[in-house]
Amino acid sequence: MPVNLVATPAAELFAVPGVRWGITEAGVRKAHRKDLAVMLLDEGSAVGAVFTQNRFCAAPVQVCREHLAQGFGVRAMVINTGNANAGTGEDGLVRARSTCIALARLLELAPEQVLPFSTGVIMEPLPSDRIAAGLPQALDAALEDNWANAAQAIMTTDTVPKAFSRRVVLGGHTVTVTGISKGAGMIRPNMATMLGFLATDACIAPALMADLAHDLAEASFNRVTVDGDTSTNDSFVVVATHKAGHAPITAWDSADGQALKAALMEVSRLLAQAIVRDGEGATKFITVRVEGGKSGAECRQVAYAIAHSPLVKTAFFASDPNLGRILAAVGYAGIADLDQSRIDLYLDDVLVAQQGGRYPGYAEADGARVMQQSEITVRVLLGRGQASDTVWTCDFSYDYVKINADYRS
Amino acid sequence: MPVNLVATPAAELFAVPGVRWGITEAGVRKAHRKDLAVMLLDEGSAVGAVFTQNRFCAAPVQVCREHLAQGFGVRAMVINTGNANAGTGEDGLVRARSTCIALARLLELAPEQVLPFSTGVIMEPLPSDRIAAGLPQALDAALEDNWANAAQAIMTTDTVPKAFSRRVVLGGHTVTVTGISKGAGMIRPNMATMLGFLATDACIAPALMADLAHDLAEASFNRVTVDGDTSTNDSFVVVATHKAGHAPITAWDSADGQALKAALMEVSRLLAQAIVRDGEGATKFITVRVEGGKSGAECRQVAYAIAHSPLVKTAFFASDPNLGRILAAVGYAGIADLDQSRIDLYLDDVLVAQQGGRYPGYAEADGARVMQQSEITVRVLLGRGQASDTVWTCDFSYDYVKINADYRS
Repeated sequence: MPVNLVATPAAELFAVPGVRWGITEAGVRKAHRKDLAVMLLDEGSAVGAVFTQNRFCAAPVQVCREHLAQGFGVRAMVINTGNANAGTGEDGLVRARSTCIALARLLELAPEQVLPFSTGVIMEPLPSDRIAAGLPQALDAALEDNWANAAQAIMTTDTVPKAFSRRVVLGGHTVTVTGISKGAGMIRPNMATMLGFLATDACIAPALMADLAHDLAEASFNRVTVDGDTSTNDSFVVVATHKAGHAPITAWDSADGQALKAALMEVSRLLAQAIVRDGEGATKFITVRVEGGKSGAECRQVAYAIAHSPLVKTAFFASDPNLGRILAAVGYAGIADLDQSRIDLYLDDVLVAQQGGRYPGYAEADGARVMQQSEITVRVLLGRGQASDTVWTCDFSYDYVKINADYRS
Repeated sequence: MPVNLVATPAAELFAVPGVRWGITEAGVRKAHRKDLAVMLLDEGSAVGAVFTQNRFCAAPVQVCREHLAQGFGVRAMVINTGNANAGTGEDGLVRARSTCIALARLLELAPEQVLPFSTGVIMEPLPSDRIAAGLPQALDAALEDNWANAAQAIMTTDTVPKAFSRRVVLGGHTVTVTGISKGAGMIRPNMATMLGFLATDACIAPALMADLAHDLAEASFNRVTVDGDTSTNDSFVVVATHKAGHAPITAWDSADGQALKAALMEVSRLLAQAIVRDGEGATKFITVRVEGGKSGAECRQVAYAIAHSPLVKTAFFASDPNLGRILAAVGYAGIADLDQSRIDLYLDDVLVAQQGGRYPGYAEADGARVMQQSEITVRVLLGRGQASDTVWTCDFSYDYVKINADYRS
């Protein structure tokens, strides 16, 4: 059961002028599943993207990087579920490229104007012939008002489609921001989530797009973790179709720039948090906030040590305020000169530990009360400096083991 | 169910002349449990020890370090289960010291000649009064031939007591090496295991003891992991009582030195591996061997990424040869210039991936056959250099979640 996450109603997902989605069943791994999606961009769109830092990155990630480096201007993306085309060596690259060639031919584009994305089982050959065979049908079905179906089509172990929209008014023109994401396991993005696609009809200077994708991912997808396993296929793409008619954004410090970036950031963060809320087996949504560090990096180091600890995560699942496990994780996070006698720990508003020891006024009943909630904030004060950072994660349940033990059966 | 681990019969555990163990029920956390053990060393014994690298180290670890630094010569150790005396701040230090003072008074020693050890729940006050009250009874019960009971007394979530003995003949004198350990969860030792005590009646120059403890831990306890959670209380102590009558060992490169060190190493490794075999919820014992690295450190980095991946561990639990998950872990292990096209992966003798892709001759049935075994070796060839290293771990099952969700109830 996802934690406080329901699918956004289709009526609340706004089409982005200049973007169409076509979806079909290609039989990539199983029959009768919508497993192939094509995202079509009107001419003049600008694209920025970030990808996994996993050195064993999947073939489509390698091809995306190659194609973006060419700079021809991206006009289409082809996304399949059921097969990640990762751990597939040279043959995997050939298959990823052949998918782009097939779609480019149908659209009369250069293959370098197509980006490929795959998600699913690792180390099995991509059935690129079946994908190519499904493309004409996907193109026939392409619509602007199709984001809800697209969110559905890119799901794997997700239980809820993840899609959000926001609107802002820039110089009298209404601008839309809509995005979708997928992911539930193998989630510890290190650039972006498993797959995330964000589009706006705003006019953003193309030169800003790469940094924009980086900045958005850094404050959203790069701050969530389910199980600490960085995927081979993480990809996050931001599209601006330049259809909205307002004056182009050439820097982010104008009022319009700030309003647009806030909307883009909000949708990115909702998409990233939705992945944690739908984390495999998740029953709780945990915000881990670390303050008083010497740098943001060391705050993240501590936050991830807590967020990845199987002992901390099973205690949250059990609603057991066994909070010494959190202190233990702080202690092994790798800060060599950490002074335990300066550390305070809060669970929501409850002060649990002060100066490294149990706070005398802490009553187990108060900890137990917070642990029952479905949304919990862990706050650690390091007492070393002024930096802080936040990571979002979920608990660790029987169902995580079940889902991942049964994944391929 | 532990993996291929049964308790060593008491008759195969040899007493170490100069070492006595006294055990009693002190009611630290629960009644009617042997939860207090005292290890008594004859005068002239030499001691070396290593402790957790967790910055949130427990009070007894801090007191051990202080007492060892004084150099008075250790004569006794006091070990309790049920309470880790960790995350207890200044009050925890007072209570750990008071336990040493109580035992020192009974034995007419200086408090600095006593080392304290605690294991159990974190962040609750140590009932040092009940421990002190139990000490006379523990001393009355002290015997040389008591290792099997000592192994039993230091267990927490362990299901099997962990104790091993070996004998070697040095210059015509039979020398005994006997050790015990405990630990099943919160196991990612970063100096030593939760608790390990190794003793020999050999004569070893006291100047060698600290390095000996480090070397033994480095090749045994520091190469195992259950859940990646480094404990606050890890402690490993090596004792040499100098009773055996052979010529003292002053360096390890003599024939006698080599024979003794091999026996010490064998018992250390058996104790460390026993912790993994009895890992919480473990159903499989996994050896992760990484070869062809530029350094031992990067081989360990890759081995631990595999050994800590919840996805890899649940696949082993399910006997599912979902081996792409291992490649993904290799990829995110943090080697920045890793070239995936040079990587080979074996499961026991089965070549699964070659040059970063699925080996054409690999049949899923072969992978499935190995995955059914209770003992499996994962071998990764990085193709970067000549270094190698090995880490031992276990799988990740429903029972791990159950044990840790229910731990305090």
